[in-house]
Amino acid sequence: MIDKIINTCVLGASGYTGADFIRLAARHPHVHISALTAHSHAGREMAEVFPHLATLDLPRLTTLDEVDFSGIDAVVCGLPHGTTQKIIAGLPDSVKIIDMSADFRLRDTQVYEQTYGKPHQASELQKSAVYGLTELNRADIKNTRLVACPGCYPTAVLLALSPLLGNKVILADDIIIDAKSGITGAGRGLKQNTLFSEAGEGLSAYGVAVHRHSPEIEQELTKAGGHDVVANFTPHLVPMSRGELVTCHVKLAHGTSADDLRQSLAEHYYGEPFMHILAPNTYPATQHVRGSNQCHIGVFADRIPGRAIVIAAIDNLVKGSAGQALQNFNVMFEIEETTGLEQLPIFP
Amino acid sequence: MIDKIINTCVLGASGYTGADFIRLAARHPHVHISALTAHSHAGREMAEVFPHLATLDLPRLTTLDEVDFSGIDAVVCGLPHGTTQKIIAGLPDSVKIIDMSADFRLRDTQVYEQTYGKPHQASELQKSAVYGLTELNRADIKNTRLVACPGCYPTAVLLALSPLLGNKVILADDIIIDAKSGITGAGRGLKQNTLFSEAGEGLSAYGVAVHRHSPEIEQELTKAGGHDVVANFTPHLVPMSRGELVTCHVKLAHGTSADDLRQSLAEHYYGEPFMHILAPNTYPATQHVRGSNQCHIGVFADRIPGRAIVIAAIDNLVKGSAGQALQNFNVMFEIEETTGLEQLPIFP
Amino acid sequence: MIDKIINTCVLGASGYTGADFIRLAARHPHVHISALTAHSHAGREMAEVFPHLATLDLPRLTTLDEVDFSGIDAVVCGLPHGTTQKIIAGLPDSVKIIDMSADFRLRDTQVYEQTYGKPHQASELQKSAVYGLTELNRADIKNTRLVACPGCYPTAVLLALSPLLGNKVILADDIIIDAKSGITGAGRGLKQNTLFSEAGEGLSAYGVAVHRHSPEIEQELTKAGGHDVVANFTPHLVPMSRGELVTCHVKLAHGTSADDLRQSLAEHYYGEPFMHILAPNTYPATQHVRGSNQCHIGVFADRIPGRAIVIAAIDNLVKGSAGQALQNFNVMFEIEETTGLEQLPIFP
Amino acid sequence: MIDKIINTCVLGASGYTGADFIRLAARHPHVHISALTAHSHAGREMAEVFPHLATLDLPRLTTLDEVDFSGIDAVVCGLPHGTTQKIIAGLPDSVKIIDMSADFRLRDTQVYEQTYGKPHQASELQKSAVYGLTELNRADIKNTRLVACPGCYPTAVLLALSPLLGNKVILADDIIIDAKSGITGAGRGLKQNTLFSEAGEGLSAYGVAVHRHSPEIEQELTKAGGHDVVANFTPHLVPMSRGELVTCHVKLAHGTSADDLRQSLAEHYYGEPFMHILAPNTYPATQHVRGSNQCHIGVFADRIPGRAIVIAAIDNLVKGSAGQALQNFNVMFEIEETTGLEQLPIFP
Repeated sequence: MIDKIINTCVLGASGYTGADFIRLAARHPHVHISALTAHSHAGREMAEVFPHLATLDLPRLTTLDEVDFSGIDAVVCGLPHGTTQKIIAGLPDSVKIIDMSADFRLRDTQVYEQTYGKPHQASELQKSAVYGLTELNRADIKNTRLVACPGCYPTAVLLALSPLLGNKVILADDIIIDAKSGITGAGRGLKQNTLFSEAGEGLSAYGVAVHRHSPEIEQELTKAGGHDVVANFTPHLVPMSRGELVTCHVKLAHGTSADDLRQSLAEHYYGEPFMHILAPNTYPATQHVRGSNQCHIGVFADRIPGRAIVIAAIDNLVKGSAGQALQNFNVMFEIEETTGLEQLPIFP
Repeated sequence: MIDKIINTCVLGASGYTGADFIRLAARHPHVHISALTAHSHAGREMAEVFPHLATLDLPRLTTLDEVDFSGIDAVVCGLPHGTTQKIIAGLPDSVKIIDMSADFRLRDTQVYEQTYGKPHQASELQKSAVYGLTELNRADIKNTRLVACPGCYPTAVLLALSPLLGNKVILADDIIIDAKSGITGAGRGLKQNTLFSEAGEGLSAYGVAVHRHSPEIEQELTKAGGHDVVANFTPHLVPMSRGELVTCHVKLAHGTSADDLRQSLAEHYYGEPFMHILAPNTYPATQHVRGSNQCHIGVFADRIPGRAIVIAAIDNLVKGSAGQALQNFNVMFEIEETTGLEQLPIFP
Repeated sequence: MIDKIINTCVLGASGYTGADFIRLAARHPHVHISALTAHSHAGREMAEVFPHLATLDLPRLTTLDEVDFSGIDAVVCGLPHGTTQKIIAGLPDSVKIIDMSADFRLRDTQVYEQTYGKPHQASELQKSAVYGLTELNRADIKNTRLVACPGCYPTAVLLALSPLLGNKVILADDIIIDAKSGITGAGRGLKQNTLFSEAGEGLSAYGVAVHRHSPEIEQELTKAGGHDVVANFTPHLVPMSRGELVTCHVKLAHGTSADDLRQSLAEHYYGEPFMHILAPNTYPATQHVRGSNQCHIGVFADRIPGRAIVIAAIDNLVKGSAGQALQNFNVMFEIEETTGLEQLPIFP
Repeated sequence: MIDKIINTCVLGASGYTGADFIRLAARHPHVHISALTAHSHAGREMAEVFPHLATLDLPRLTTLDEVDFSGIDAVVCGLPHGTTQKIIAGLPDSVKIIDMSADFRLRDTQVYEQTYGKPHQASELQKSAVYGLTELNRADIKNTRLVACPGCYPTAVLLALSPLLGNKVILADDIIIDAKSGITGAGRGLKQNTLFSEAGEGLSAYGVAVHRHSPEIEQELTKAGGHDVVANFTPHLVPMSRGELVTCHVKLAHGTSADDLRQSLAEHYYGEPFMHILAPNTYPATQHVRGSNQCHIGVFADRIPGRAIVIAAIDNLVKGSAGQALQNFNVMFEIEETTGLEQLPIFP
């Protein structure tokens, strides 16, 4: 295994998740970056598009059409939803696919169509996709060819709540997920509301009840809980670049306490290298996971009897996207799971 | 009334709320700032302590003992809780008091003692204090000598929820208040967690279930709803200086909708100069009220049937403290209520 | 004068300088905002484009063509350079024009063409334009019909250096202007480098030697000094929304000291309401002028004998643009110069 | 060499530079962290003091007295200046010392006393100290027992200017260093001016002509240039946590151009793993080196004939302190110099 080299192509290398995958993969001993695509930047060097990667020796950016997939072992996709379904469906069987986009996350392609506004173009392939939340789905990820990496919000929410629903220590009704994300969550596209002068020194909610991560969260909470879950999901845009905090307000199952929840999570994640269940009265903070693949979770009793608050913090670009993609990559290629992901959080 | 001049003393002029009161009052045609106290800065000029006020002609900072209250009409108190109860109790009857501290907010002095950790030292005076949420309590404020201005969080929460509870369009149980504040909410004292390098580019919750604003919120929601309310209150620290957003997750009363809630608030606040109920699908944002006394409220349907989300945005130092203090000052001295508070939000 | 009302049209109301002019003018007792134009937003309400102004009763945004200039007394232009020269040239003589764009700042239309890349389209009108740095040019502003308000950087630089050159206490050679601006200086247009995630938590220089404010600075320094000045101008982009600091490294004239410079400025600006020359060892800071029309200047001795450092701080959108425009407006219409500009800096 | 383990003690582990050294060293295959001291936090776990390091298995914090230096190979000191001179002087000869404090940087202990306000307490030891700017002093660092790591500002300035002075392509007079630093440069101590609400959304200069890094810069520029250098040094505090940019305004030697300077630097640093000389018209930006040990340098022609601008960007905590300390550590212990420092910049 020492000299195993995986030839890897990154689709969408001019976006934040693509670039963060490259940042991590460039120091991974078994990854060779063989091709990089970026539609509107084809022909340019990565150094021009992402100067922080200028010291790397990377292939020039190309269009999708220019990629020769014959020598490629792995495709990592960081493109906007809906743009690569056909291409991915047409890849040789020998290529493993780690998709960071939303294309294969929703099992029901009708829900996909309702959520993303157009019919799914690779519904057959969808059936073989595995939902790539590594800690909760490791065995299936290992044996699949196509991993649909979760959205950043679902990653944090499901890491916090799925084991609790599975263990029946919380109830499935009235789950309130008050979520907060840094601005990179909106991507590198040009939008007025993500300009520094618009988003800085300010805070607002957005996408209440209609955010595209809602069906994804509900799909997986339903799976964990064993019956249909409809959950509140209220995201907010926070003036920071990286980081995501989900504050989940839940009902305790009869006879359980916040301490039981914490204990349940600690047991569930025992031995997991990236999961850190915090001691009582200790608050997760996004600045304490920044740049790393870690997820910190804290549990708190509520003033309202019978309720608790479960809070999870991740870096939305790492554990919420590129880091988890690399973690899945390691699982799929039978490489030690922490390889390339050893970086500690960078604070301050 | 044109030449009415109110001689005003500000206690605690070296804190953020004291300074912001001065910023506003300095342009108020009926306020004369006669004395400024600041314990540890006594003897210094305001220009040294707050260089942004250097162009004003202000009295030198003094100790409390140095103030001659005989010519003072109004005392505005921006001191930490518990430090002025005796002094305020000893002021001449002719002085009106606008207290921005927490000292007289809780009607039950036993709750005060539990919350603030020491016995109340002016429990007789407490009985005559009026809770100074102007829009909800204007008549009483007009006729009192002592106004206890609400905390910043309670201001936003109560403006959003009290009329809805009063009108019985929402239920009093299971109220989840997920709140977010800028760093000025923690004051100007030196604390590690409010250093730029600790708070910047990060987000965390704090004080879950034990924050001192909880009893205050519950006291007033109980009053509005007519029976005991215990509410979830989960504050978060956001990397911005000013601004506060409260995201209130509530249950709809039988037969009501999110639209009904919006309509109820719009009717309740009709004609109020600082209240702005937003159109459907419009999100309150702290950057759109910054520096002003405005409160923006939006109402949203939840994915969970029978629930809604009510979101309010204020500037924590203005409507959440110094601005509301000046608004109460105007009411108490029978001055046009918007005087000195006409400043529009400053954006970006 | 009490009931003098100036019917005012703002061109380019969807940009930051246009909006900030409206923020200030809306509270100005003699301004009536009669028309607002915004090419790509025509037909919309200001509340949609700038929600912080939603509580104002403003005319709907229109195209330029829709404006009836017959009842207009003043036009304030906040459009990108080059887009209104012909329109302004065609306005009735009765209309006074305060131009916040760069169109009429450069007296030599050949320099204009070199700098802005296209021929000037109103070169006759240019001859009558007055450079609108109020403190240095008040008499001419009072008697003109067309004021070209300075760029934000030139405002700060010239307020700091012009009187010193005029008084011959500094030399005209080797002037190094190391300038720093908040992100609003780049406007509201969509550019990748002004996204929150690109500009936040970072710092870089830009436009070294080629920035369009260089010829403007040199034109006015030349005028102040009496002979040709070529100056270094090195702007930097700082992760804050508002604020501009220019650090000017200059050579002392023979026999003068940093203290002489400070004294010279203090005398020159004596009685000026917006100019504040700081005491020795006191540093100007952009956060201490934020939101106000003030300019703070500090002077410091250098370690290198015969040199000094002159530092000026302004709010780039106020004194650097919209505030100075309103100040010029007041001068042109013989209104008390501070009217509408009394707002104190907002800190924190 | 594969199994070489260096037992390392970090003095001052509760400060930012100490913590950042641990962040890097924890992933270094040859470092074993044997002891951590932190005066006021003795007895506590690092997880309490720096929660981002909570997943590491680190020794408990102790006082200096509790450290048994007998098994220690290396001491890395991150303490405030003046606090460890005696202790370091008393360490066994077998211990190598990498000092990130200012204690041994100034060769002339009289200059030290003038600069730091107290006599040097280990002036004999000072004579054997090597100034630890790795790229400029590698040979001496390899053969010494005590390395005085440069200050963050001197690191950036000297990397930019020393080779140019040495190659005589710039002149030694009238060097203007306009420097900008993120807030971590002020350390973790509690100071009002580094509170989020004071430093955020603002910018100011500080320490003009008297900053303690001035004598250090002049000492090393003098060494590089071969005769006495007195330089302007004007630092500014920028609202970001990490990052440092120095904008050096210099005079070209007769007959040289900005392009010659760029070429000279490129040749000087050829093969250096952390030095990156940018192409013409490319601007260094602190966000493109964040979290890494890289230094990016750009050179620009000035509008003033005969002058140029040399700009360098580093992460003040990494190349400006902890990273360079680890780089020196590697040199001293004959380990591949990039070990533990491979992390790419983290952007955004």
